[in-house]
Amino acid sequence: MDLPEQGPIAHQSAVFTDGLVLDCGQHLPSLTVAYRTYGALNAQRSNAVLICHALTGDQYVGETHPLTGKGPWWDHIVGPGRPVDTERYFVICINVLGGCMGSTGPMDDRAPGEAPWGADFPPITIRDMVRAQKRLIDHLGITRLFAVVGGSMGGMQVLEWAATYPEMVFAAVPVATAFYHSAQNIAFHEVGRQAITADPNFAAGQYYASGRTPKDGLAVARMVAHITYLSEEALSRKFGRKLQGTTRPTPHSLALFGDMFEVESYLQYQGNSFVNRFDANSYLAITRAMDQFDLASEYDGDLSRAFAGTRTRFCVISFSSDWLFPTHESRAIARALNKAAANVSFVEITSDKGHDAFLLDEPDLRRVLGGFLNGCALHAGLVEDDR
Amino acid sequence: MDLPEQGPIAHQSAVFTDGLVLDCGQHLPSLTVAYRTYGALNAQRSNAVLICHALTGDQYVGETHPLTGKGPWWDHIVGPGRPVDTERYFVICINVLGGCMGSTGPMDDRAPGEAPWGADFPPITIRDMVRAQKRLIDHLGITRLFAVVGGSMGGMQVLEWAATYPEMVFAAVPVATAFYHSAQNIAFHEVGRQAITADPNFAAGQYYASGRTPKDGLAVARMVAHITYLSEEALSRKFGRKLQGTTRPTPHSLALFGDMFEVESYLQYQGNSFVNRFDANSYLAITRAMDQFDLASEYDGDLSRAFAGTRTRFCVISFSSDWLFPTHESRAIARALNKAAANVSFVEITSDKGHDAFLLDEPDLRRVLGGFLNGCALHAGLVEDDR
Repeated sequence: MDLPEQGPIAHQSAVFTDGLVLDCGQHLPSLTVAYRTYGALNAQRSNAVLICHALTGDQYVGETHPLTGKGPWWDHIVGPGRPVDTERYFVICINVLGGCMGSTGPMDDRAPGEAPWGADFPPITIRDMVRAQKRLIDHLGITRLFAVVGGSMGGMQVLEWAATYPEMVFAAVPVATAFYHSAQNIAFHEVGRQAITADPNFAAGQYYASGRTPKDGLAVARMVAHITYLSEEALSRKFGRKLQGTTRPTPHSLALFGDMFEVESYLQYQGNSFVNRFDANSYLAITRAMDQFDLASEYDGDLSRAFAGTRTRFCVISFSSDWLFPTHESRAIARALNKAAANVSFVEITSDKGHDAFLLDEPDLRRVLGGFLNGCALHAGLVEDDR
Repeated sequence: MDLPEQGPIAHQSAVFTDGLVLDCGQHLPSLTVAYRTYGALNAQRSNAVLICHALTGDQYVGETHPLTGKGPWWDHIVGPGRPVDTERYFVICINVLGGCMGSTGPMDDRAPGEAPWGADFPPITIRDMVRAQKRLIDHLGITRLFAVVGGSMGGMQVLEWAATYPEMVFAAVPVATAFYHSAQNIAFHEVGRQAITADPNFAAGQYYASGRTPKDGLAVARMVAHITYLSEEALSRKFGRKLQGTTRPTPHSLALFGDMFEVESYLQYQGNSFVNRFDANSYLAITRAMDQFDLASEYDGDLSRAFAGTRTRFCVISFSSDWLFPTHESRAIARALNKAAANVSFVEITSDKGHDAFLLDEPDLRRVLGGFLNGCALHAGLVEDDR
């Protein structure tokens, strides 16, 4: 298929007809927030855990994905008996503003009866995403989230939640993230954006009517991003220089070499499968939001001021081989929280799996996250001390 | 301009009408080797230094580039009074086989009167490049090179020279290189190749007739490669998160953000200027050659056997912040040379400039290289001991 087959999927969502005023000053006339929940909200409405997804993730954190048929994307973390235990917590996961899985984004019509926004979708920020999420949390009648948890761009949202709505966040777990996007990360994103906008099917972002999406450009964007998610060690262990005797799909390589390296075939698969579930304009809008993110700049350059007087309990987690969001960036968050006299623990988990580790079955991540949330649950009175 | 304006440039070259048999088994019916020389060959023909260029380099190592008008690409290293002193040495620099600056490559006609090779150019290896270079060295009447020096892909050629023609190499200096291309490096190259072949102008590699080159794809390939040449530190210091108030060239970004990050503008410049001097089919062929490179595999997996009995003097140089060819890969070369009882020194130069450091003015590189070559010149009898 060429365009994501979203027709048949009725994403669960809430619609806010008064829309949303964005950081850029523009007013979105209507706001749809698509989400999924798992477990039950308790009578006190005090056991809600918000999971924030990453750049290309979505709200289907705890179930089979309706488009790809793949299993839950954070299966090791969210579910019955898991660190984010759906038998104890009411888990909410929200498709970000600007996304393509039901929340308001570039695929939506600008106004009823008009063409889709496409590349004219207003620029959004991580704070805009969090504001949209808060609308849903308010709508669900939840005045305080027990925890906000997320990795990568999800971690940026965790930080923004804790800074913007401190009284609403009892515990915050930013994983494999940073309080600003580095020059190198911006550069990698820009390569992906150039690949998308260079695709003739992009048609200045108005490709929905033609049915021809810029899938080649989007696949290249996904491929370059995917390399940054892995460590050199992980790539070497997984593929090394192993050859694969398949015929390559591009004319050039058929002529040049009959064999290809397994890592090439893997990347091509990653690129090609991605385009069937993701919208290129969403990719542009969300990568822009990540690049713009600089939480300290919202507080006169002093990150600790973002957390002044906070009573939120923080657990900051990084992975040793993550070169996209290296440990020193997590340490800077922990330092700022210390300066703000916040309750914070910081853990660097030893792993050779790179940034991807936060999505994989890392026993240490399960242990650290589970232990931290259990302790917080005790303090929040969600569970009784059975020692 | 769209196609490199190569018409008016008469590259200095030698033509070998018997052609060249390649590693893949194919026979190139004719071989042209384009080159430049600097300094004078002495009467004993013993003072020749071969400089091997990197992926996108060329033979214009010591003079203004005829296409770009830029200065010599290794100005700090090659020239009068420089470490590779053109007042003492006869310096030769050769456009690699598969290149686009005069040596036989994809831009050449398959046979007189036929269409250019394009993407049908036979797959080449680093060893094929070195074999082509040896033809020129023989042609110049040089039986032993005083030194072979090169960085990155140039370093791969240095290693291949020392392994394949040990009696012809008195001294060898592989800089910022490896004896095999890693899975991560193959992956980054593959992203570039996908960007090129996805460009509709690529036309299965037969774009010369149309005059429309796959410049958007080639620019993306250059951009992603360029990120890997720099360190995170260098990017942060150079650009950080500084914004630039220019209008962006793509429609998407005009709508999304008026400002762009300086690093984006820089990358776009790098990508766009590259396409005016480089051929996309050459980029495909040469990146393939680098990816295929695995010197140990030519010697039953034991790199030390590549250098068995060698009398060449080696100086292996790496840079501390180079993550494309990290120090541990240079150390592996030094270890294999030690195992082969070769004369080897190994230096890791502290620099925060990433892989790019080998092309920049690094005083330590000048000192190490100059000192090593001076010592070798003494042993080779090129200069008298004036102590």
